[in-house]
Amino acid sequence: MPTVAFDELTDFLAAVLEKLGASADDARYMARTAATTEAAGVSTHGAVLVAAYDGQVGKGIDPSARPAVVSERPGTALIDASRGFAPMAMRMAIKLATAKARANGVAMVGVRNTCWLGGLGAYLLPVVEDGLMAMLWAQSSQCKDSVPVGGIDARFSTNPVALAFPTPSGPVVADFSTAIFSMGKVNLMARRGAKAAAPVFFDTTGRLSDDPATMSDGGAMLMAGAPLNEHKGYALSLWCEALTVMGGGSANNPDAEQRQSFNLTVIDPTAFAGADYYRQEMERFVAHVKSSRRRPGVDEIRLPGERFLAQVAQARAEGVQLRPDLLDKLNEIAGRRGVAPLKPLR
Amino acid sequence: MPTVAFDELTDFLAAVLEKLGASADDARYMARTAATTEAAGVSTHGAVLVAAYDGQVGKGIDPSARPAVVSERPGTALIDASRGFAPMAMRMAIKLATAKARANGVAMVGVRNTCWLGGLGAYLLPVVEDGLMAMLWAQSSQCKDSVPVGGIDARFSTNPVALAFPTPSGPVVADFSTAIFSMGKVNLMARRGAKAAAPVFFDTTGRLSDDPATMSDGGAMLMAGAPLNEHKGYALSLWCEALTVMGGGSANNPDAEQRQSFNLTVIDPTAFAGADYYRQEMERFVAHVKSSRRRPGVDEIRLPGERFLAQVAQARAEGVQLRPDLLDKLNEIAGRRGVAPLKPLR
Repeated sequence: MPTVAFDELTDFLAAVLEKLGASADDARYMARTAATTEAAGVSTHGAVLVAAYDGQVGKGIDPSARPAVVSERPGTALIDASRGFAPMAMRMAIKLATAKARANGVAMVGVRNTCWLGGLGAYLLPVVEDGLMAMLWAQSSQCKDSVPVGGIDARFSTNPVALAFPTPSGPVVADFSTAIFSMGKVNLMARRGAKAAAPVFFDTTGRLSDDPATMSDGGAMLMAGAPLNEHKGYALSLWCEALTVMGGGSANNPDAEQRQSFNLTVIDPTAFAGADYYRQEMERFVAHVKSSRRRPGVDEIRLPGERFLAQVAQARAEGVQLRPDLLDKLNEIAGRRGVAPLKPLR
Repeated sequence: MPTVAFDELTDFLAAVLEKLGASADDARYMARTAATTEAAGVSTHGAVLVAAYDGQVGKGIDPSARPAVVSERPGTALIDASRGFAPMAMRMAIKLATAKARANGVAMVGVRNTCWLGGLGAYLLPVVEDGLMAMLWAQSSQCKDSVPVGGIDARFSTNPVALAFPTPSGPVVADFSTAIFSMGKVNLMARRGAKAAAPVFFDTTGRLSDDPATMSDGGAMLMAGAPLNEHKGYALSLWCEALTVMGGGSANNPDAEQRQSFNLTVIDPTAFAGADYYRQEMERFVAHVKSSRRRPGVDEIRLPGERFLAQVAQARAEGVQLRPDLLDKLNEIAGRRGVAPLKPLR
């Protein structure tokens, strides 16, 4: 695969984003987050964000919009993104929630009326590096992805959640869909001709299939946890919709315009039993988890985010691998937008 | 199955709890919650709580202990239950979190150093009936139940979570383990000689089995979502442990004394986009979910908690069905503690 330098990828994405109408500072923030996700190997949610924005600017996205707080209490706020870039509203949400969590112990900030954010995990890393815990829910108004328990018609977007907390050996960051798969994963499987390990897709007649191509033919998928724990993903996905409704967004509604909503909780873990206890007990617990005997072929018990961070570190040193079709797409956009092409190192 | 009147079951459980050392008011609160869970048909987490307390009073449980707030910020508090009854600490946590959420928009209260709470959902019903949203995590320090991804040794208790929010047609309340099953479910399956629908239990040599009896032979189980989504249950279970550590409890540690910890978030949904928007959009969304075509044999698309509430209503009118072995056990305790036996209606 073509490999590009991390800093060059960041500069390139920032240059394209500026051409799409973002300020220099905003473009750099967005580019760095997208490049980090790409560097972690999450190619479904990384640099492809910039390609998505290229297609939406002037349609769903207003690049000149500025996010604004529309309601507030000591521990909460609601931000209306006014159809602007999602990362800029999220940056404001993180700043606000961090300050409120330090004062109140916990804070929750909702974001409505915006676009795709890309991978959630990369946004929470700086929050955890500040010593805080965070939970982030994302919802999309219009996507027809996953079905309620007992149903065969899509009534939910994939409604992902990210969970992040500090440990003495580094951040734990998990990021997953409350549907059985993210749509990025579904599309990747379909492109590769791969099948799911179980029949988790409904076709339009309600027949179950293991073929991800079912989704692009108007199908739908089961919730996270299926087949044994389908009700758990269903509950989590409903919670995500309830947070969206609370935050003034549109719950799933294929007749509405496509908008994304977010809900961010930030917690100051030192507000409860103190920083020393947290550090010591977390250190003991992480060692306890890692001391489990391993399954065949497993070299190490990992915490969520460990591989992500290791891959980011490696990619920063050795370069970021980019899918050839994504590199071509980005350079096509660059050509059209008047930005010098991204040249692979090798 | 023997059937008892709901009010008689509540009075009976309260009388036993008073004999165990609870105040009359505390006994009534605990009895009502346990009877509600039993009435909902959740026999693994209902009236059996009183039998569990009977075995623990004077050992793990100090019935004279009073929960106390040990640290506090405007939006948070930590309650030490001092080994007292868990429902009493939870009652205090709910009261405190409700008041803080009304003032701040969101509140989080941790509880440490207590015993089993029984089913989580019944505690959140009054919170939702007050128009609030709630999330409740429960953790147990010593239980060896579920394994990390890649591992075969238990490093977590079943770490359940409950999620609850209001809708115009009634509360949504979900309550599930972040392990593949609750231990109540595992024990019930084992008693009935039932097998899991997939191999989700590890025996002590690391071989997978579908037999729940594996657990009582020192085995362990996979996380919620397994086999396709094991990493999602793992992330949720880790989050629950992190909240426990934050709250001054013991994360999983088979060498520690058995203690339970809880973490309750209460949100005032009117703090964001207002009560009117919440009601209208939630009503539309619930209808949208329920409008899905159904799978064969499914009579209705239900939201989590619907069946729970319908069964409670029916049991209040027609009586609560009690497992014969549970009725015998409760009456054995009553005889020993000097309480008149519970007599079935039929």
